[in-house]
Amino acid sequence: VHIGLIGLGKMGFNMRERMRNGGIEVTGFDRNPEVADVGSIDELIAALPTPRLVWVMVPAGDITDAVIGELGEKLSAGDMVIDGGNSRFTEDQKHGAFLASKDVRFADCGVSGGVWGLQNGYGLMAGGSDEDIELALPVFDALRPEGERADSFVHVGGVGAGHYAKMVHNGIEYGLMQAYAEGYELLAAKDIIKDLPGTFRAWQKGTVVRSWLLDLMVKALDEDPGLASIGDYVEDSGEGRWTVEEAIANAVPAPAITAALFARFSSREDSSPAMKMVSALRNQFGGHATRPAK
Amino acid sequence: VHIGLIGLGKMGFNMRERMRNGGIEVTGFDRNPEVADVGSIDELIAALPTPRLVWVMVPAGDITDAVIGELGEKLSAGDMVIDGGNSRFTEDQKHGAFLASKDVRFADCGVSGGVWGLQNGYGLMAGGSDEDIELALPVFDALRPEGERADSFVHVGGVGAGHYAKMVHNGIEYGLMQAYAEGYELLAAKDIIKDLPGTFRAWQKGTVVRSWLLDLMVKALDEDPGLASIGDYVEDSGEGRWTVEEAIANAVPAPAITAALFARFSSREDSSPAMKMVSALRNQFGGHATRPAK
Amino acid sequence: VHIGLIGLGKMGFNMRERMRNGGIEVTGFDRNPEVADVGSIDELIAALPTPRLVWVMVPAGDITDAVIGELGEKLSAGDMVIDGGNSRFTEDQKHGAFLASKDVRFADCGVSGGVWGLQNGYGLMAGGSDEDIELALPVFDALRPEGERADSFVHVGGVGAGHYAKMVHNGIEYGLMQAYAEGYELLAAKDIIKDLPGTFRAWQKGTVVRSWLLDLMVKALDEDPGLASIGDYVEDSGEGRWTVEEAIANAVPAPAITAALFARFSSREDSSPAMKMVSALRNQFGGHATRPAK
Amino acid sequence: VHIGLIGLGKMGFNMRERMRNGGIEVTGFDRNPEVADVGSIDELIAALPTPRLVWVMVPAGDITDAVIGELGEKLSAGDMVIDGGNSRFTEDQKHGAFLASKDVRFADCGVSGGVWGLQNGYGLMAGGSDEDIELALPVFDALRPEGERADSFVHVGGVGAGHYAKMVHNGIEYGLMQAYAEGYELLAAKDIIKDLPGTFRAWQKGTVVRSWLLDLMVKALDEDPGLASIGDYVEDSGEGRWTVEEAIANAVPAPAITAALFARFSSREDSSPAMKMVSALRNQFGGHATRPAK
Repeated sequence: VHIGLIGLGKMGFNMRERMRNGGIEVTGFDRNPEVADVGSIDELIAALPTPRLVWVMVPAGDITDAVIGELGEKLSAGDMVIDGGNSRFTEDQKHGAFLASKDVRFADCGVSGGVWGLQNGYGLMAGGSDEDIELALPVFDALRPEGERADSFVHVGGVGAGHYAKMVHNGIEYGLMQAYAEGYELLAAKDIIKDLPGTFRAWQKGTVVRSWLLDLMVKALDEDPGLASIGDYVEDSGEGRWTVEEAIANAVPAPAITAALFARFSSREDSSPAMKMVSALRNQFGGHATRPAK
Repeated sequence: VHIGLIGLGKMGFNMRERMRNGGIEVTGFDRNPEVADVGSIDELIAALPTPRLVWVMVPAGDITDAVIGELGEKLSAGDMVIDGGNSRFTEDQKHGAFLASKDVRFADCGVSGGVWGLQNGYGLMAGGSDEDIELALPVFDALRPEGERADSFVHVGGVGAGHYAKMVHNGIEYGLMQAYAEGYELLAAKDIIKDLPGTFRAWQKGTVVRSWLLDLMVKALDEDPGLASIGDYVEDSGEGRWTVEEAIANAVPAPAITAALFARFSSREDSSPAMKMVSALRNQFGGHATRPAK
Repeated sequence: VHIGLIGLGKMGFNMRERMRNGGIEVTGFDRNPEVADVGSIDELIAALPTPRLVWVMVPAGDITDAVIGELGEKLSAGDMVIDGGNSRFTEDQKHGAFLASKDVRFADCGVSGGVWGLQNGYGLMAGGSDEDIELALPVFDALRPEGERADSFVHVGGVGAGHYAKMVHNGIEYGLMQAYAEGYELLAAKDIIKDLPGTFRAWQKGTVVRSWLLDLMVKALDEDPGLASIGDYVEDSGEGRWTVEEAIANAVPAPAITAALFARFSSREDSSPAMKMVSALRNQFGGHATRPAK
Repeated sequence: VHIGLIGLGKMGFNMRERMRNGGIEVTGFDRNPEVADVGSIDELIAALPTPRLVWVMVPAGDITDAVIGELGEKLSAGDMVIDGGNSRFTEDQKHGAFLASKDVRFADCGVSGGVWGLQNGYGLMAGGSDEDIELALPVFDALRPEGERADSFVHVGGVGAGHYAKMVHNGIEYGLMQAYAEGYELLAAKDIIKDLPGTFRAWQKGTVVRSWLLDLMVKALDEDPGLASIGDYVEDSGEGRWTVEEAIANAVPAPAITAALFARFSSREDSSPAMKMVSALRNQFGGHATRPAK
């Protein structure tokens, strides 16, 4: 199998290596010539055998739109595009319809595993037709961890279903991280706890809360036991928001995941207009002193 | 009616004046001689006709404990104590039993209205026996707003019930303030909103969200339209915490009130250990940059 | 002033009456001939003096879209449309641009007050140009409560700003109702509370939590002291969802308002898939018994 | 090493077996004679070499109190008691002081691992003096999984610190389960998801959300793919509540963990008084229909 891979950033770069380690021939393109195998999407298309298979691994939104638009114009009938980035599932349906109008196949694939995927393999959630997913199986098999396919790969449903599952996966991830983080703070707040990093470390085997995220927390605490060097400003990157929006759209209560999202929003506020108002109100009705603005 | 009033702070001072305006004779004691009518609790007791009626209006906790302890030792059988402070309802049951052992009557009374109570009258929630509450009705009538008694006074139940109702009242107050404050921030965040103070002002009459708290927000925005001078640091004072603890004890879901309490906790953190951990984790699995600690 | 009013449902019917009481001539149209003054939009247009003023008061979404679409085709340059329904603010910008392409003016107006507005007057939040809002002032003045205009009417900003403010108003309303409701349940859960309806009643004057919503709760408890006849199934109608979506879009933490929305979602679930999973998990790791499905 | 073990229920029974498999001699007592090795605590004490080591594994609260009280009266100076149950950490400090007054040593140990601990080993969090913990190390080593001690055992701090850490562990567990469960419901709500159990299964390797709890969910879905047989009623058992109470006591915002607790409370309500009130209110102000009570 010979695949084209567009986007060789933090994720794509490692994925190319893992694909190659798995025996897949990969021609990679990136705007950064230092990591690219070819100089343009045209060259990439020219380098691939037909029917072509092109994996898109670029930032969700406008850039993915542009790349898929260009591929739709330049690929041939029977070629196939896989969007492995973090596109919103509703985009997939748009992209799939556009490519179908050109007789180009389309599948979406949520990819989890972060910077550890090269070494561990990636968890994969794919959406598309049976036939199209079948076609790309060798690539999925190269990317995923060894062992049974069903433990790390799923064909979730039609186009968009893979990214929907990945979105929910990331929403869960927000909730898991928030739960651990609240526990961390509860331990940090209590002076009877003499060995906080050791407590997280001892949870790694045997406890109900053991997980890969826990292992990473142990690693983070090993590097910086009090997290003294790390700021409390936390970005969010789309999937958490979309998960809550889907909760709303489907009338699903999702209080823990939403709490995680809102905690990130709060972490980024230099000053909270809401809490200024609460302070102003307490002053108005109770004469409670306010603090001066920072 | 001649009553003794112990505690002439922000609340008690105004309450003495409102009682007097309502035709009640009041002898007030406070550790601050500038506001006190007598120099000691002994003098206060000596000044009152028997059976004596003593209203305690001091900070909840140790100080209320000490004052009620002293009254228990010094009052006579048939006298009556009313705790009008913000004691936890579980304390009332303890205080009531102690005073009963001395044949001294006891009632608790939650008092709402803040610094505006002098002018507007206070909302009152009383706990105690029918006979004891009956005895104190003239005082309750002086303190409450004019109009029908039932619109501003309630005999909630036995000893402790008044403070339980006041605790819930304050828990609700936390939730109301948080809801308005979130709305304020949502308006402040949107550049299409050209007249934020005017919007709050226009909600005062006719809308579903009109309330006394809204009127106070309008006042606060009138004084400082952008709340520029007010910090976003918000204290909490007991009842909010107790309300959530009662929610837990009674298995009552109370997510909005609890959100309000947690927002205050967050407002007081210079740095959030939890969010440091979330940031550290994102760095571990995704290579996402962390910010340096402040 | 002579205005056309399209939509004579629960809100529009009462608004026509209040406008007329305020000296405005109103020609009303509704698909229900029993309440309509004319038989069609064409007749309504024919009945109005130019430049015409038409107030649209129909359900948000497709119906509002259709009515505004029809008006755009049939009105003349210089006429003006006001959308007083609960449209999402993003719709206003679309409607405004469409009507502008026909040289028809457009303003949006959030209307609060529910079924009591006829008697009390409505709180109004308008969006549009200074000139257009000025034009409609006599109608706003007829609809709003008596007293100072600024206490019940605000020109929030350009087209869409009125509905944005109304959306936030309704989001706050969700939060306020939830806070009171949690407090209600906390009182109901405690057997020391002997007079729950009386407690709400006594909060109406003097307390910090007094509000119009509180007055309505007193009324509801007066009609049915234990709410025995009322189910716990609660609908939501758009603005609550949009408020949380705007919180997400603007990175504003809104935990109390969101808690209120999720509580409604939960209230409508016959069975919670999420809690089935939690139960299944507890069984898996701890051997805790599950309950059979309902 | 020869240890006495009091309490041979779901946890204790398995722990006795694992201790024995690890070469520890165990004399077990339980009120259930079918599982007990001896007929009374007296016999258990008589069977142990001095200084004695007794592990208490009975339900937290009154029963633990009674057992520790009896041991305090019957053990000799220099003997040691370990409370391995789910006592609240504040109880440990009381029990430790009581036993110290008898010159009996005391340590507390949080034990995680559920019904899988026999096979996998238990995660252990101990509180006590260095000397006392040292003494019990062979028992901890038998109970914990193989491998490095620090990966499954921690000496958290003085008496009570072990149970505090276990409480936080369980609080985190609540949050993790809720996050996964919300994700489960979001997948279940979406018809484009054609293979929900397969999606959870495919998360087991390679993804960021992989964990032991995830493995158990896969197992649960394997047994009952739609969880059709499982009710949505979820108990809570103390530690979740205590975690939120500690969040309050230490002013730590813990919204995700608290959301998990409240979701359990809601799951157990046949009817929600709070949502009845919200429904009643919507009827009052907007004329929205209510549903009849169930």
